Amino acid sequence: MDDLCDLDAVELAQRLRRRDVSARDVVAAHLDRIERVNPAVNAIVTLDAEGALTAAAAADEAVARGAEPGPLHGLPIAFKDTHDTAGMRTTYGSPLLADNVPAFDELVVQRIQDAGAIRIGKTNVPEFAAGSHTFNTLFGVTRNPYNLGRSAGGSSGGAAAALAARLIPIADGSDMGGSLRNPASFCNVVGFRPTPGRVPTYPNDNPWDTIGTSGPMGRTVADVALLLSAIAGPDRRSPIALETPGDAFRVPLERDLAGLRVAWSPTLGGLPISADVSAVLSGAPAVFAELGCVVEEAEPDLSEADLVFRTLRANAFELAFGASYDARPDAFKPALAWNIAQGRGLSRGDVGRATAAWARTYRAAAAFFDVYDVLIAPVSQVAPFDVDEEYPRIVAGQEQHSYLDWMRSAYHVTVLGAPAISVPAGFTPDGLPVGLQIVTRPRSDLLTLQVAAAFEAATGHGRRRPPLDV
Amino acid sequence: MDDLCDLDAVELAQRLRRRDVSARDVVAAHLDRIERVNPAVNAIVTLDAEGALTAAAAADEAVARGAEPGPLHGLPIAFKDTHDTAGMRTTYGSPLLADNVPAFDELVVQRIQDAGAIRIGKTNVPEFAAGSHTFNTLFGVTRNPYNLGRSAGGSSGGAAAALAARLIPIADGSDMGGSLRNPASFCNVVGFRPTPGRVPTYPNDNPWDTIGTSGPMGRTVADVALLLSAIAGPDRRSPIALETPGDAFRVPLERDLAGLRVAWSPTLGGLPISADVSAVLSGAPAVFAELGCVVEEAEPDLSEADLVFRTLRANAFELAFGASYDARPDAFKPALAWNIAQGRGLSRGDVGRATAAWARTYRAAAAFFDVYDVLIAPVSQVAPFDVDEEYPRIVAGQEQHSYLDWMRSAYHVTVLGAPAISVPAGFTPDGLPVGLQIVTRPRSDLLTLQVAAAFEAATGHGRRRPPLDV
Repeated sequence: MDDLCDLDAVELAQRLRRRDVSARDVVAAHLDRIERVNPAVNAIVTLDAEGALTAAAAADEAVARGAEPGPLHGLPIAFKDTHDTAGMRTTYGSPLLADNVPAFDELVVQRIQDAGAIRIGKTNVPEFAAGSHTFNTLFGVTRNPYNLGRSAGGSSGGAAAALAARLIPIADGSDMGGSLRNPASFCNVVGFRPTPGRVPTYPNDNPWDTIGTSGPMGRTVADVALLLSAIAGPDRRSPIALETPGDAFRVPLERDLAGLRVAWSPTLGGLPISADVSAVLSGAPAVFAELGCVVEEAEPDLSEADLVFRTLRANAFELAFGASYDARPDAFKPALAWNIAQGRGLSRGDVGRATAAWARTYRAAAAFFDVYDVLIAPVSQVAPFDVDEEYPRIVAGQEQHSYLDWMRSAYHVTVLGAPAISVPAGFTPDGLPVGLQIVTRPRSDLLTLQVAAAFEAATGHGRRRPPLDV
Repeated sequence: MDDLCDLDAVELAQRLRRRDVSARDVVAAHLDRIERVNPAVNAIVTLDAEGALTAAAAADEAVARGAEPGPLHGLPIAFKDTHDTAGMRTTYGSPLLADNVPAFDELVVQRIQDAGAIRIGKTNVPEFAAGSHTFNTLFGVTRNPYNLGRSAGGSSGGAAAALAARLIPIADGSDMGGSLRNPASFCNVVGFRPTPGRVPTYPNDNPWDTIGTSGPMGRTVADVALLLSAIAGPDRRSPIALETPGDAFRVPLERDLAGLRVAWSPTLGGLPISADVSAVLSGAPAVFAELGCVVEEAEPDLSEADLVFRTLRANAFELAFGASYDARPDAFKPALAWNIAQGRGLSRGDVGRATAAWARTYRAAAAFFDVYDVLIAPVSQVAPFDVDEEYPRIVAGQEQHSYLDWMRSAYHVTVLGAPAISVPAGFTPDGLPVGLQIVTRPRSDLLTLQVAAAFEAATGHGRRRPPLDV
């Protein structure tokens, strides 16, 4: 049964389409593996085995009756627990929503199911997706399949761990400050933060927001592209949705990178980076040179990225959670309380000035991407840290004062408004995964995927399985 | 010479392309008319006759040498004085910028010139484009060509009056609360507020903003579509730019409207509308019924539109002008000072709550446009008012307490995020023009133009020339 769980989503989808294997068998294989492996990693926190098998059987029957199988036909998926699922508990990792059962699917959930995927459950998240380490009081901590004593990252940490542990072949996630990228980096899988608007969000209290976005995760770049093809494309309820239909991403990703101008930024403007991470990534520029790229050290102006991200995040958090916090302060973890308080310390003018600073950064990035086709940089400043820590207290000798500090290498890139992917780049001497962040100009999501696919093909680090003994 | 000035832009552009007429002759004809007519209307406030004739001669020579003429080849244009023009005075109607000569063209200006139009000068605006009546301390008031004792509207009032007076065949404008639509309604021309992002803005201190947008004006819907084709399309420096290229709008606008579901909203939710305006527009539903549409009275939920627009505008004004106002309060008109003060009275939470209300309105509009293809409504709540008033003090018996109150029929539609056009709909018994506002779902700009073109063809009110005796 494990063989089916080991297959890439693209391969599995092909076999399902050809009816070499039934959706019921694929789902059953994954449920079996979840039963054996999930207790060790705690990636999937809500499971509906019966519902999944019933849905899989119905999908098999529909196809047998001649229905055209969707691009994700028969693939099991567990949705991020911050994404509403109709009739299935959706807690956001908060005790306030421990018994929350939404009436409707969120758009990304609906699109994935419309494309034929089979819902089996939900993946773990930090409380309200805040922070890049996945723990909460409802379900506890998610562990890294490559080292159960280490963090799986977050906030899409349950998703990344579930992919790495072969519990599901595809996963949805979301990313404000690195939540698709950090867990991918930590778990040796692929996480893609698309250009905001590529994967529209509904419902959404601020549908104009471009700091947060949903996005796809998988074990290979091609799997991520397959999932993206199902979740990308315009929706009339999203004012920022990009117009290109999703099937623009259902294409081969092979591309000759010869002549591409690649900027290598080892520290994204002087951020502290752990020596073990730097050592792994030091080989990346040569990979691109070997592929025919022109590689040089360079980076866009990120001098205001901290101000922009911290201000807009704190403002958004206060607006989203401030009232709930006042009603039930005991129900919030200290990091969230702190971030809400940060928001309360901001004036209207502070938010306006941060937006103006963001405009300057965006403008500088546009000029940067006129010179360079690709930016490569670390995803995470540290390798997966102790699972019992809330966040790494020291990074490359520098003290980290909040749960956000160590996430700069991811959230500085957020401010560029650009598509950014984490792709497996190797392992530390301790066997901990390290991801490479590949960024291209806003809207060039396909180029990001193509470059990542070329790096993946040249290096193959994603093929190393976690040492899970089950 | 007046004959050339009477031609539609589409016809004039065709003659220029065929070299039936030279750019120099076209520009000379318009300069001659400006010399005779502009003193009466005061629409064009900066003129560079010599530069325009030189540029026209150069354009003629380039085409004679075999260069491909652009879609706007040889058409004279005066740019809105809030749009930066390289090397040409750009005052924004403010004494603070009386001597401001920008080094660079704003994107919309650059695109229009890249498409072959010839810059002859600048059109008048209210101080910093605030308000829908065009007057300032630098240049005075712009008069309505249909009645010199009446307002030409604003803020693109110089543009609308210049079009109506046949001083230019096309004009650029911009619209936050009706600035492309009100002056078009007042001056019996066409003003199109496109979907935000359709005509990207650069430079821009808040490039994510979708309250304000640039857009095209002309005497016919086809002329507006021609200009839109030159200014629409993505720009890498605009994060909200829609992806569709501009030439998608260089197409015939004929469309059979049979079966379209048209919602007629005579008061946009109970706004006071002058009886003379209502009387003119009362015939509009029958026009659409005659065209085969299914017409019924309906309107989207605009109950929070006032809160949304007033809050976001005041916030934007304070951020844009607050510091300048503190330095030189004497240099601002009272209405602007009041609007800046309104902004200062807002908290960060107020802005956040207005954004959430906006999301609700946008969501309701999406549902509305699932039922109705088209919304038709008044553009302006009043016919052109006394040119010596700052704004109409009474509308349909209701006192108006600020320069914004009477603009609700335009700015409520702004909040829908939808393309909205003002197209000539007839005249009051006093001979004052009245426009019909046609709105369709966000991004369906082409449908808006097609519906407007059908209404225009069926009614032909735009063909009545102003009674200018020159």
